[in-house]
Amino acid sequence: MVETGYRIDDGYIASHNGARSGDMRRDYESLGERLHRRGIGIEDIAARAAALTVALPSWATGTGGTRFGRFPGAGEPRNVFEKLADCATVHQLTRITPRVALHIPWDRPHDPGELAGFASSLGVGFDAMNSNTFEDEKGQRLSYKFGSLSHTVAAVREQAIAHNLECVEIGRALGSKALSIWIGDGGNFPGQVDFRGSYERYIASLKAIYERMPGDWFLYIEYKLFEPAMYSTVLNDWGSAYHAATAVGPRAYCLVDLGHHAPNVNIEMIVARLLQLERLGGFHFNDSKYGDDDLDAGSIKPFQLFLIFHELVNAAAHGRGAGVPEPAYMIDQSHNVTDPVESLLASVEEIQRAYVQALLVDRAALAGCQEANDAVMALRTLKAAFTTDVAPILATARVRAGGAADPLTAFRESGYRARKERERR
Amino acid sequence: MVETGYRIDDGYIASHNGARSGDMRRDYESLGERLHRRGIGIEDIAARAAALTVALPSWATGTGGTRFGRFPGAGEPRNVFEKLADCATVHQLTRITPRVALHIPWDRPHDPGELAGFASSLGVGFDAMNSNTFEDEKGQRLSYKFGSLSHTVAAVREQAIAHNLECVEIGRALGSKALSIWIGDGGNFPGQVDFRGSYERYIASLKAIYERMPGDWFLYIEYKLFEPAMYSTVLNDWGSAYHAATAVGPRAYCLVDLGHHAPNVNIEMIVARLLQLERLGGFHFNDSKYGDDDLDAGSIKPFQLFLIFHELVNAAAHGRGAGVPEPAYMIDQSHNVTDPVESLLASVEEIQRAYVQALLVDRAALAGCQEANDAVMALRTLKAAFTTDVAPILATARVRAGGAADPLTAFRESGYRARKERERR
Amino acid sequence: MVETGYRIDDGYIASHNGARSGDMRRDYESLGERLHRRGIGIEDIAARAAALTVALPSWATGTGGTRFGRFPGAGEPRNVFEKLADCATVHQLTRITPRVALHIPWDRPHDPGELAGFASSLGVGFDAMNSNTFEDEKGQRLSYKFGSLSHTVAAVREQAIAHNLECVEIGRALGSKALSIWIGDGGNFPGQVDFRGSYERYIASLKAIYERMPGDWFLYIEYKLFEPAMYSTVLNDWGSAYHAATAVGPRAYCLVDLGHHAPNVNIEMIVARLLQLERLGGFHFNDSKYGDDDLDAGSIKPFQLFLIFHELVNAAAHGRGAGVPEPAYMIDQSHNVTDPVESLLASVEEIQRAYVQALLVDRAALAGCQEANDAVMALRTLKAAFTTDVAPILATARVRAGGAADPLTAFRESGYRARKERERR
Amino acid sequence: MVETGYRIDDGYIASHNGARSGDMRRDYESLGERLHRRGIGIEDIAARAAALTVALPSWATGTGGTRFGRFPGAGEPRNVFEKLADCATVHQLTRITPRVALHIPWDRPHDPGELAGFASSLGVGFDAMNSNTFEDEKGQRLSYKFGSLSHTVAAVREQAIAHNLECVEIGRALGSKALSIWIGDGGNFPGQVDFRGSYERYIASLKAIYERMPGDWFLYIEYKLFEPAMYSTVLNDWGSAYHAATAVGPRAYCLVDLGHHAPNVNIEMIVARLLQLERLGGFHFNDSKYGDDDLDAGSIKPFQLFLIFHELVNAAAHGRGAGVPEPAYMIDQSHNVTDPVESLLASVEEIQRAYVQALLVDRAALAGCQEANDAVMALRTLKAAFTTDVAPILATARVRAGGAADPLTAFRESGYRARKERERR
Repeated sequence: MVETGYRIDDGYIASHNGARSGDMRRDYESLGERLHRRGIGIEDIAARAAALTVALPSWATGTGGTRFGRFPGAGEPRNVFEKLADCATVHQLTRITPRVALHIPWDRPHDPGELAGFASSLGVGFDAMNSNTFEDEKGQRLSYKFGSLSHTVAAVREQAIAHNLECVEIGRALGSKALSIWIGDGGNFPGQVDFRGSYERYIASLKAIYERMPGDWFLYIEYKLFEPAMYSTVLNDWGSAYHAATAVGPRAYCLVDLGHHAPNVNIEMIVARLLQLERLGGFHFNDSKYGDDDLDAGSIKPFQLFLIFHELVNAAAHGRGAGVPEPAYMIDQSHNVTDPVESLLASVEEIQRAYVQALLVDRAALAGCQEANDAVMALRTLKAAFTTDVAPILATARVRAGGAADPLTAFRESGYRARKERERR
Repeated sequence: MVETGYRIDDGYIASHNGARSGDMRRDYESLGERLHRRGIGIEDIAARAAALTVALPSWATGTGGTRFGRFPGAGEPRNVFEKLADCATVHQLTRITPRVALHIPWDRPHDPGELAGFASSLGVGFDAMNSNTFEDEKGQRLSYKFGSLSHTVAAVREQAIAHNLECVEIGRALGSKALSIWIGDGGNFPGQVDFRGSYERYIASLKAIYERMPGDWFLYIEYKLFEPAMYSTVLNDWGSAYHAATAVGPRAYCLVDLGHHAPNVNIEMIVARLLQLERLGGFHFNDSKYGDDDLDAGSIKPFQLFLIFHELVNAAAHGRGAGVPEPAYMIDQSHNVTDPVESLLASVEEIQRAYVQALLVDRAALAGCQEANDAVMALRTLKAAFTTDVAPILATARVRAGGAADPLTAFRESGYRARKERERR
Repeated sequence: MVETGYRIDDGYIASHNGARSGDMRRDYESLGERLHRRGIGIEDIAARAAALTVALPSWATGTGGTRFGRFPGAGEPRNVFEKLADCATVHQLTRITPRVALHIPWDRPHDPGELAGFASSLGVGFDAMNSNTFEDEKGQRLSYKFGSLSHTVAAVREQAIAHNLECVEIGRALGSKALSIWIGDGGNFPGQVDFRGSYERYIASLKAIYERMPGDWFLYIEYKLFEPAMYSTVLNDWGSAYHAATAVGPRAYCLVDLGHHAPNVNIEMIVARLLQLERLGGFHFNDSKYGDDDLDAGSIKPFQLFLIFHELVNAAAHGRGAGVPEPAYMIDQSHNVTDPVESLLASVEEIQRAYVQALLVDRAALAGCQEANDAVMALRTLKAAFTTDVAPILATARVRAGGAADPLTAFRESGYRARKERERR
Repeated sequence: MVETGYRIDDGYIASHNGARSGDMRRDYESLGERLHRRGIGIEDIAARAAALTVALPSWATGTGGTRFGRFPGAGEPRNVFEKLADCATVHQLTRITPRVALHIPWDRPHDPGELAGFASSLGVGFDAMNSNTFEDEKGQRLSYKFGSLSHTVAAVREQAIAHNLECVEIGRALGSKALSIWIGDGGNFPGQVDFRGSYERYIASLKAIYERMPGDWFLYIEYKLFEPAMYSTVLNDWGSAYHAATAVGPRAYCLVDLGHHAPNVNIEMIVARLLQLERLGGFHFNDSKYGDDDLDAGSIKPFQLFLIFHELVNAAAHGRGAGVPEPAYMIDQSHNVTDPVESLLASVEEIQRAYVQALLVDRAALAGCQEANDAVMALRTLKAAFTTDVAPILATARVRAGGAADPLTAFRESGYRARKERERR
């Protein structure tokens, strides 16, 4: 039987909230009054805020690193159970992260049933399964040094396909419904990789996986401009991912990681396009200034995050085609200099903030501005939503759902990490 | 009857070549011997070099400028006839630029037949027609300030469609077989443009043009990341262009302008992908360091130009699907600080150089390296071609075809520009 | 005697404000209560908000354009007087733009005294003088096609120096105290410009100007990565500007235009560094996504604008060395698709918003986080300020100073532009 | 006594060269004839090619990796002796890499005297010492997680200073004359780092090291835009490095790593500027497409490498100020998918190629073009040098010095790596 170890006490959260309840109520009411003037019902917004869900990545509960080193923190999880416990704590405090994405082999369970039971006891479930063919697992027969699903050698491709199918198998046992594939395949030098052949092999491998996935599963394929491949990446941009998804089948969708684009690219427009073409599977949220920096969501370009949610809310209003799933929201970050749970708490809040701000956009007014080419007022309509301080909505929605008014402070003051330091020596 | 004005005398060229014939022959023979050792027949390469053709843009015969001003040179062409004369001079010296791309309204002929006859008398023909809906023409009924083919107002879109059809009409009379469309439509601010609606309207407008094009014409659609729109561009990247082309019809193809991408993007890979997906229509060659700088081809990133031609030669070896045209090679540059004819001469030479170098790649060896993931030798195979000094092949191919051994020097010493200064006051 | 033409009536503004006074007071009080809880006095913040001043560029009152065309709007100013009238209107509504920066030759006055009197009658004065040697003025003796202050030919440099001294002369008559120099000098191709020689000549020219400036004037030198020069720019980055300023003299300072950097560069860090080295002269505010897009301030990266002001407020707390001036805040934008006055109003508001948000940063808490390397709480401290909706402070400060509660709406509803269309045919 | 293990036999090299001597001589003579026509003496160029020296980084003899994994190759060196043996092999084949740069702690010798003797027996010596405070060494007292030389805590800074002084100490024993410092200090989030304080602390730490360096040593300080810090880096650009160098003292110089800049930045111009300001210490050569990709020199942007050497040759013609050292040429690469020795051999050849091509530039002609603003001919002058196939010069210079005509082929065919696989189990 797996031990959970220390968990934050619900009474503690209640007491944390109690101390803030007066100010919180006042702020919520005062914001409600201001929104009312703009024709917006705060209760409706709060309800939609509470209905948002964001999946947590198991791998982001430990300290990440760069090729120049990793500086682990104390009390980090040592196995998938402890990772789930940390994720459950994030959910306990935020109330919008009920699912965890696993990464195989890092999280390969000895007994999926035991893991599922453990997760259930913590009140969390499972999101997309993530395969890993960008590293060699200890004892692996063939190396992925020169690629995996697009490798020139069939046996390597087959090994990579088999690994993905193993992920599906584990996921089925855990109640997951999606496989998310990101590969590092590509080349470091001109000439190294045959662009045409590698793309063809990659698509053929995807098909082989897709055909053996359960009929109610979705396949998310994630593109990335560079890294680890430093000259050419097989699935380098949304256009390549879009074509691959259409070539693979109706349940194949593109996954947008915000850090996987060239400098200056308009990501919200890519999001809108994939939504329009009905091939947006979901997101890996994070933020970045230079490359795939994997920083906390909203930490560098909060307006961009808002504009992305604006497109998502827009598209939701348009409706989805038959069989097209709702975009899946996942976090994918590397917490190199922060407590990973704290970074997740902060990121979840920023994602929810951007979503709630996007809900405040006066879409009828905006459509009117767009029709009239009134750029000043169109931008102003967006800015009116973006500059609204929605913190009272976020806090209220959380508290109503049983979470913490101020998750970061509650977490810090709970002594969770110090306890884990002792538990996880 | 239109006057041609001064033309370079063929005797002058012969004398220019005569003075260089000894060295040229020696260099050609010596290179031939070295290539022979590598299993390459120089005569075959020279023949293929001579068979390359590149279209010249009429608009690049005048001095370009930036939004910070334009500094015209003396002796610039004042009308489409004089532009053709300059282009014909480039062809006379290089022998691989037999066609000119026109731009309407800048080159709108009063009498297409007269223009065609004039061109024919100069030994040049016509390439793709280029429409212009990124500016307002004097006296134009509706403005393109807020877009053209994707404008929110149907009447503006119809005006833009009609303009494109006028271009087709003129092109038919001149013997052109393609319409090339680049629009500046987009927005400067978040919210200004409805991403979905504008893309839908743009595709619908393209269809309206396409359906009325002659059945043997091709439609080239040109994407661009930014400028003049500074936040969002309707046709911003190859993925958007690719989808649009497939939505429009089998004779719609994507046009790659080398300066229209985000920083760091691997353009040769985009070229390979569009070739693989059979939607590459052709190129606007130029070079750039920052944005759409429109510098002379090969002036900044000659290795990139070589790698692009390497993909083109690769794809040609793969063969083309039924009905898929050969990629069209066009130049599109802005000559702000140079004599435009000189920049064209230099650019044509660099394009031909990159092509000839690409022909020298040992493709069997390269395929072997790729299959074996031998990155060092794959790159070396490319570099062996790229570092070969093919100038003797270029000169020989030109001279054999009646062009100049050294077009730039021949042009300078001919006194052409000084004559034109007097003729074109 | 110059006619002012239509001006917005102060009674109209009062009535506009009156209609909003109840909500405005309520919002201000409610925000005051929330800030009070954070230990911040709203009255102090409002007073500092009111004390901010931002200079307007005369040239931004007309519609800008790109090299692909310009789409003028109706009712644009036709001369420097009308530009001043538009700027005065911005000041009338915002109350923080009391000075106008002129551009010579575009704004060269026949009679500086008359112009000064006219400005004074409108309640505005003059900011830095801006010279122009990136274009050729009609009738100019020598061309700047190949450079100005760094030209290889001494006579061209002398002409450019003389032009700058003319700007100083005009500025003296108008009460200006600074000369701002931006040149387009550079090259489009490798080899074109001798990097060393051109930089030496540029610094020598600056010295020649500096030595003849009045002793109480400041010289601002503005760097820019590219455009109009597309390969190399003489004054390309802050390092080059910093060295040049130190070489020229103690009253030479660097000017930061937010759009003049390479992609991904951390501009707030450059600002901090120039402040630390005591060579920051001031700003050209605008926003951009790709290059020098010259969009409205705060429209694309509002968090970056906030972080810049955060550094400015930081540095102000450190104090300035003897003789080091306060950084000068100027706007430099190109309004291509909007009413220029509206874009200025929106930009002024965003600049003031960023400043006020920066004032809200709990600097003691932040310093504590920095000392303790607490990245999560450091960011959160900044975000607490950035996500505060300070609109009530902006509105209240404006109204108290006699401006409009909502300048954009007030401007639109005033009918100003329609009046100007009739006046300025 | 340290065992050298297998070394390539000089007889083997002689035989490799013998097989190529006929073609090599013919190619050299034919190139000599062509250069003679251009007024260039090939013997002079060959002599200067042979005089170039490039330092090898000990750390690049092993397989590098990314944060997404590392795929080691067989036969990699296991310690500093084996690294030296590999470097000596590169020198044996290329004859221009007589020095190795060490990295402490990775290469910390138990007995520096023994190491020096071993190196001497292999015919190599030592270049700059490289400290490492971007990682935590096992058993280190204080962590560099939040910085080293710029850390907020004095004790951490002192530990980092002491480490650098240890590097100096080791270097003295080995005959090194320079300390090269690159730190990863910086922040991942806005607010994390006090820009001013961290820069001040960094400079103070540099001074503390500088003051205790021997009087004939040089200090190289290396700037980098980002990574491992993802938002702000203390020494982020050449401007910051330049100011720091001047603040530290006359023997402090800036080190340019080609991969450490923002996208699009003109690196050859930075090189020219640092040369002009007499603060260029040297280079870390490598190549990159996206970020600090650390690819083989010349593999992505060979023309840029040529332009950098063009500036170096230019500056050498200008002469250096008293005490200013010659720029030091070092390689710094990460060989993730290639045999490290092969990548070093290829890189050394590309660096030498770029240098030799730069020697071919007709500098008098170029100066004339620059003076006359003749951009077309200026570029052409550079291109005439760049497109010259200088391989015969490189081969001949190598062979004359005792190296291999074709180092890569010689290395492969020697069976060196297979031998090392057996030796280095």
